[in-house]
Amino acid sequence: MNIHAKRIKDLQRLLAKSGLDALVVSRTVDIGFLTGYHMDDYLLLVSRKGAWAFVAKMLLDDFTAKAPFVEPIVPEGGMEEEVLALRRKAGLKRTAFDPENETYNRGTLWRRNGFVEKGGLVGALRAVKEGEEIENLRKSCRIAARAFGIVKPRIKTGRTELSVYRELEDVMQSMGAKGPSFNLIVGFGPNSALPHHVTSGRRLKNNEAVLLDYGCVYNNYCSDITRTYFHGRPTEEFRKVYSIVAASQKAGLAKVKAGVNSMAVDKACRDVISDAGYGQYFIHGTGHGLGLEIHEFPRLNTRVSVALRAGMTVTVEPGIYLQGKFGVRIEDSVLVTGDGCEILTKR
Amino acid sequence: MNIHAKRIKDLQRLLAKSGLDALVVSRTVDIGFLTGYHMDDYLLLVSRKGAWAFVAKMLLDDFTAKAPFVEPIVPEGGMEEEVLALRRKAGLKRTAFDPENETYNRGTLWRRNGFVEKGGLVGALRAVKEGEEIENLRKSCRIAARAFGIVKPRIKTGRTELSVYRELEDVMQSMGAKGPSFNLIVGFGPNSALPHHVTSGRRLKNNEAVLLDYGCVYNNYCSDITRTYFHGRPTEEFRKVYSIVAASQKAGLAKVKAGVNSMAVDKACRDVISDAGYGQYFIHGTGHGLGLEIHEFPRLNTRVSVALRAGMTVTVEPGIYLQGKFGVRIEDSVLVTGDGCEILTKR
Repeated sequence: MNIHAKRIKDLQRLLAKSGLDALVVSRTVDIGFLTGYHMDDYLLLVSRKGAWAFVAKMLLDDFTAKAPFVEPIVPEGGMEEEVLALRRKAGLKRTAFDPENETYNRGTLWRRNGFVEKGGLVGALRAVKEGEEIENLRKSCRIAARAFGIVKPRIKTGRTELSVYRELEDVMQSMGAKGPSFNLIVGFGPNSALPHHVTSGRRLKNNEAVLLDYGCVYNNYCSDITRTYFHGRPTEEFRKVYSIVAASQKAGLAKVKAGVNSMAVDKACRDVISDAGYGQYFIHGTGHGLGLEIHEFPRLNTRVSVALRAGMTVTVEPGIYLQGKFGVRIEDSVLVTGDGCEILTKR
Repeated sequence: MNIHAKRIKDLQRLLAKSGLDALVVSRTVDIGFLTGYHMDDYLLLVSRKGAWAFVAKMLLDDFTAKAPFVEPIVPEGGMEEEVLALRRKAGLKRTAFDPENETYNRGTLWRRNGFVEKGGLVGALRAVKEGEEIENLRKSCRIAARAFGIVKPRIKTGRTELSVYRELEDVMQSMGAKGPSFNLIVGFGPNSALPHHVTSGRRLKNNEAVLLDYGCVYNNYCSDITRTYFHGRPTEEFRKVYSIVAASQKAGLAKVKAGVNSMAVDKACRDVISDAGYGQYFIHGTGHGLGLEIHEFPRLNTRVSVALRAGMTVTVEPGIYLQGKFGVRIEDSVLVTGDGCEILTKR
């Protein structure tokens, strides 16, 4: 069975389990996940037995070719009115929407028409990857990991951050990637100490840190990797900080396994850095899920508790940031398995 | 004055005019427009006299450097709680949120705390471009227009759509663009008849249509252009359809001017195509606003009536699509002026 047709069946099972007759799905990426058709501005209604997409006329042929298991409806008026009309016609009493992934305006319209709120159904399906999703993530991550080996030797004194950004993109595209998975971060010297640095025209000088936080999109799936190194002869301080971050990341990776709590992975990373006296310089969470989006459920941090499940893909990316000097972050994307994890960002 | 500081002053004037004490802004692109700092996951509160951003600790230095005219607050708990606390402290009674650009969950929280709904304030400011925004759009569009002249001679029989996609990206980046402004469409032969074709591995054959719908991001501003031509010796039908679309686009461009209604531009384009007997094959609206986003207010179509204003930037892009054969679309991005329009997508 087509993986998307299967995903809709999975959702239909969740609907029955949750006592719902139907769910209206309005987030583009959620609809793309369920249908395989990634496009703005259309709505999906899934009942326990059926699935309908409300698509503009100009998308009809394309949609039907890609998602023959969903019934397309070309709205004559507004999409929302068509959803309401179909719901009445099909007698779908308990219809839900996701209040976190719906605008206030449209959510209010659904509520006025008796819809109920139910979040996280599609999110739960998206969090656990399977079949070709895992293959796409493996490929996406391998492309990113290989790009480092190709681009690093070309990063010479005098090059700008932006030129390296473009070369990373080009190299990943030449290996089959569609494009970058986010606004890639290339930070030289003190810029490496800004976790969300915006890649600039700054040129690389002798003897300073280089931080590359990047990834690509391959068949819609995102990769994420960070590599940090010293261009020139590393200072004592850089060596020390690097080895602490490397030990921290190793401790985090060793913790990842189905059944383990997300906060335990964060703690494993954080403890190593805190014990070394750099706790106040690790100023972000340890990681995040990734898949169709670069940031998705779950988060690995000090606040949110989630039991990891086999098939989840997450990043493990501790860092130490010394403002005005340099920052070190080491990040890999991994697949959670029953007895540990598979590092996806390897060459 | 910094253009972003000015934009906040403009918004403060709109607040006074609308009888509001403050507005909470939650859409990333709206916040970026007002502060110059483009980053996910932070909130902005603008009162008639002040402006506060609720930013994570790790973004603080970067934010302060880029938006010194906004007071940063690092939330200790949730961002929403900090907004509510500040609102109480500052005595901001009539505080609004935009119900079209807020999630149902957060909008519900604001409503419970007595916020009122008010849409379109930031949208109104964003629709009319000024100063460096216009310069950025000019540059973005010129890069896109020039790329056609460079890439077209390289599009030879046997090349894949995706390889042309990448070359368009590369060429635009070499001219200073950050990246593509959307998922660029390269359609060969019958693929040109799908207005939202997803660029594929299909190879170009002799004697078929080539449609390139693309653009770039330059200093955060998007361009959009479509060029269609025949690779080889054009058929009689292609020549005919092309000349109808060209005449249609010319008629639309001639109509664009401050004070003219958006629907009148659509009608000017549509009439030419209908009169030629191809009305049923023009299956989309005539154009859309563009700026920080590739699709923004206003739309030029048969349904929504908006008076064009000087400083708006819109596309004019009629098309005729003959399924299974070919499609022709001609698109330019233009700046609305007092006495007509300036075509931005010119070399």
